[in-house]
Amino acid sequence: MRPVYLDNNATTRVDPEVVQAMLPFFTDQFGNPSSSHDFGASAGAAVRKARLQVQTLIGAEFDDEITFTSGGTESDNAAILSALEVMPERTEIVTSAVEHSAVLTLCADLEKTRGIKVHRIPVDHHGRLDFDTYKAALTPRVAIVSIMSANNETGTIFPVVEFAELAKEVGALFHTDAVQAVGKLAIDLKSTAIDMLSLSGHKLHGPKGVGALYVKRGVRLCPLIKGGGQEGNRRAGTENTPGIVGLGVAADLALKFMDDANTRVKALRDRLEKELLQRIPHAFVAGDLLKRLPNTANIAFGDIEGEGILHFLNREGIACSSGSACACGSLEPSHVLVAMNIPNSAAHGAIRFSFSRNNGEEDVDRVLEVMPGIVKKLRELSPSASQARGLQSAPGLGDNANPTTVSGPGECNAQLFR
Amino acid sequence: MRPVYLDNNATTRVDPEVVQAMLPFFTDQFGNPSSSHDFGASAGAAVRKARLQVQTLIGAEFDDEITFTSGGTESDNAAILSALEVMPERTEIVTSAVEHSAVLTLCADLEKTRGIKVHRIPVDHHGRLDFDTYKAALTPRVAIVSIMSANNETGTIFPVVEFAELAKEVGALFHTDAVQAVGKLAIDLKSTAIDMLSLSGHKLHGPKGVGALYVKRGVRLCPLIKGGGQEGNRRAGTENTPGIVGLGVAADLALKFMDDANTRVKALRDRLEKELLQRIPHAFVAGDLLKRLPNTANIAFGDIEGEGILHFLNREGIACSSGSACACGSLEPSHVLVAMNIPNSAAHGAIRFSFSRNNGEEDVDRVLEVMPGIVKKLRELSPSASQARGLQSAPGLGDNANPTTVSGPGECNAQLFR
Repeated sequence: MRPVYLDNNATTRVDPEVVQAMLPFFTDQFGNPSSSHDFGASAGAAVRKARLQVQTLIGAEFDDEITFTSGGTESDNAAILSALEVMPERTEIVTSAVEHSAVLTLCADLEKTRGIKVHRIPVDHHGRLDFDTYKAALTPRVAIVSIMSANNETGTIFPVVEFAELAKEVGALFHTDAVQAVGKLAIDLKSTAIDMLSLSGHKLHGPKGVGALYVKRGVRLCPLIKGGGQEGNRRAGTENTPGIVGLGVAADLALKFMDDANTRVKALRDRLEKELLQRIPHAFVAGDLLKRLPNTANIAFGDIEGEGILHFLNREGIACSSGSACACGSLEPSHVLVAMNIPNSAAHGAIRFSFSRNNGEEDVDRVLEVMPGIVKKLRELSPSASQARGLQSAPGLGDNANPTTVSGPGECNAQLFR
Repeated sequence: MRPVYLDNNATTRVDPEVVQAMLPFFTDQFGNPSSSHDFGASAGAAVRKARLQVQTLIGAEFDDEITFTSGGTESDNAAILSALEVMPERTEIVTSAVEHSAVLTLCADLEKTRGIKVHRIPVDHHGRLDFDTYKAALTPRVAIVSIMSANNETGTIFPVVEFAELAKEVGALFHTDAVQAVGKLAIDLKSTAIDMLSLSGHKLHGPKGVGALYVKRGVRLCPLIKGGGQEGNRRAGTENTPGIVGLGVAADLALKFMDDANTRVKALRDRLEKELLQRIPHAFVAGDLLKRLPNTANIAFGDIEGEGILHFLNREGIACSSGSACACGSLEPSHVLVAMNIPNSAAHGAIRFSFSRNNGEEDVDRVLEVMPGIVKKLRELSPSASQARGLQSAPGLGDNANPTTVSGPGECNAQLFR
């Protein structure tokens, strides 16, 4: 039986067209892009082309606003650390409680080792950021605001365009980890006040080990990795030509398939959510159903352990996750769901299904076929299940917890940036 | 006519066997190694296998001493910055005047922004480090010594094993940028006092965008890139599975071809040097001819510009360089040759020919065929040439400047570490 891959927020299959584009740069045009001879020149030209492709995908005004990195985590680290170096008189960071560990771990370290004050904006039951707390945290002491464009676990989309404008008012830089948003949502950076944006190749059917950091012209970047003058002195180290070429083609393809992501992929996701909730009692969808990535479903199945569900799904050839792959193996409930104040009994049983353009109706069929039985079996085994039959949804979720009422086709706001 | 690639110290062609090994990890076993499902498990197993392959190549005692990174520059940066974090009471660094920019640029930045005192050990006319200055610089104020294993421009091999033992006596960590040595010289780290070692995939017929940092067990590493718990909490970010797999296979192949590098490749290099010096007057070999990488020839052609030579060689389909690719385009003479006190008139005309296992006699033939004519033509055009005919070799180079007398087959010390 064909395996079912529904963990596309963890990583995606590299598009075969991307692999084909990369291949010549391993063995034929393998030169160092910094070399002056023909081997170097053809590699250098390929890097320039990829930069334009990424520029187009995110609507940057200039190609030199794109710096290639080794991935999303490096981009996030580079952005935040640079802001602190550029503005040493500012010693505060504003971020959210639901960021990826690439931001949260760094911020915790800066708090501990350098005395940086970190404001972590809380979220409500739907995963929406608290606007008042954000505004209150913005002072001229803030060097950088780093708020993700869309949450990797729930898909909740954050109003980063508005938030960037507010950050600008106090002279703080605004960075967004858009690793989950790029390739899924239309982005036009040139019309925003966003100063820096991180993206990653392997989340959009490009290769692992390559990403980019957008830095608006006029914003100074202190390189995280220092050495040679590659990438306009912004990121030292021999350019990963095949990876960069792959990211460029992946960017092209993401644009081409953007409509598919927002119609067909979204319809698959919506059907899975609707039918799972019809078939399985005591379950609800976590996240902001009105503003969500079209591919992500985070469903909390009360009174059971997500790890147990994943184990049985894996035995059926179905791959999904209980949260970030970067926190995999942890038995703690997801920090995102905890921040949303979702009760432990529900957060522990939350499963993230994340779709891509490679998925089809048959994948939804397979999950619908096996999931009710798995949940039933696990609940029968669970000691706490019998006491907690009353759970319908997290407190405060209200109607929004029922995706059938709010998440019809076309309603998802797929235009992240104006 | 087949192009001649003699710039293997800048980058190497990825071995087709390496590419074949990487391919399944783009489109088939594309899972995130941190994911718990089968897609993740097979990627995770591949990463573990590659770690063993790299461990074997460098003779590390334990596989968990290998941390995968995005390349040599990141590894160098991570090692040096970690030492300063681990031992904040120590505020000095010892390095050499002829390191790669990955080390020198970082050190210059630390000097400027953090008040770190940097000792740059000078070299003599043969590129050999000054032992007395090194010993004098070693005090309990030194956090880390970072000395390259072999110089990228001249191939000169440094006595890092002895230097590491001396560093240990004052409690300093010892790091070596072995990017040019790994894969060319036999290395057995477990028998040394070396604490950290950087290596890069693309210098040994592996892919660009991947490298490793060896960290001896018991040495604490503060991650440069913070986030998820990948690589034993030493390097955050989704693992570049195809790149890591490629590096592993490249490590295997480097071991397999090690003898070839030290006999056949060395013979090609020696023949090129000998015959070029016979055919072209006012030229000499730069570097320590008694202790040198078997693949590297750095030849200074007096009174002309290296960029001119490279231009005409490139027109003949021959790729080589005037120094580090990372400093390409600069019209300054190489900092390595300047540190060796080689006169400007010779340093400006220095060309690095760097061989690999892909080269053959026909490559040497082609260079011998065109090079004398190119040098003659450029010298006729050069205004300074007629006045400087007296140049035979740099002052102090003596007999060592004639490779035919000192660099017979088998004399090169290809065993870097005991």
